[in-house]
Amino acid sequence: MKEQNMNILTQTQIAYLAGFIDGDGSIIAQIVKRSDYILNYQIKVSVNFIQRKERKHFLLQFKNEVGTGTLRDRNDGITELNIVGINSVLPFLKQLQPFLRLKRKQANLVIQIIEQLPLTKNDPQKFLDLCKLADQVANLNDSKNRSISTDTVKMTFQDLGLIKK
Amino acid sequence: MKEQNMNILTQTQIAYLAGFIDGDGSIIAQIVKRSDYILNYQIKVSVNFIQRKERKHFLLQFKNEVGTGTLRDRNDGITELNIVGINSVLPFLKQLQPFLRLKRKQANLVIQIIEQLPLTKNDPQKFLDLCKLADQVANLNDSKNRSISTDTVKMTFQDLGLIKK
Repeated sequence: MKEQNMNILTQTQIAYLAGFIDGDGSIIAQIVKRSDYILNYQIKVSVNFIQRKERKHFLLQFKNEVGTGTLRDRNDGITELNIVGINSVLPFLKQLQPFLRLKRKQANLVIQIIEQLPLTKNDPQKFLDLCKLADQVANLNDSKNRSISTDTVKMTFQDLGLIKK
Repeated sequence: MKEQNMNILTQTQIAYLAGFIDGDGSIIAQIVKRSDYILNYQIKVSVNFIQRKERKHFLLQFKNEVGTGTLRDRNDGITELNIVGINSVLPFLKQLQPFLRLKRKQANLVIQIIEQLPLTKNDPQKFLDLCKLADQVANLNDSKNRSISTDTVKMTFQDLGLIKK
């Protein structure tokens, strides 16, 4: 798997970021609709930070430190830093994992999802297995407004005849 | 100043806790009414962590690691870890300070307050100066429901004839 250009961080930098993420960051695996994908769905992985817009420069500092990520100003006065996609999220989480405490389970699940994603290309059943892991991540995150879960994907796959009813 | 028994933490432990506090902790200096005090008020300093009750064990881990603090279950399903008082907060913040980013200003102000508190014993004007620092901490914390500010204390001091009107 190609790893995106990402800075090598010091132990204290990683420990700090792990603490920050455990406190206020999110490690996410989200099932999203993608009509252009063979399986109609994609599992989108990301690590996200939010902060009030007037403290945006701290997020910029994180972005420069990590060496990847996208800043986005929302309409509600909040700025997000999003590290998105398997090539960024995998090396980042692998660095963070030993230092995470509250969100280590989420990190382990997302790492597992990313590492097994190549096996799902033509295997709807395997993809459903990974959707179940994504559901577990959402549950650990106390996520309330998840729109697509494993059950949604399963029903689509049955309708499309990709798996048996 | 007597320093309470507090564990010596490793660099990565401190960096982690600094990150966690920057993300979700609070560094607080609160002016509270204390009728038994000569000046009628006290500046209460604390470092606080909150977490949903089902993740209380992480707060217990922090408490054991730091070597001080009090756990308290609130009625709303949240547990707090409070590190309160100058003898605990000063050595803790001094360890954290170099690693804090978003809340380093709060830490510096609270350290300043603690170090100057002994000078306020019989000096209402000096106490008011420290109340102003406490106000600055509250502003940095986006604190909205602060009941007592420097102005409140100043008016009481004037009423009591401790300072000129």
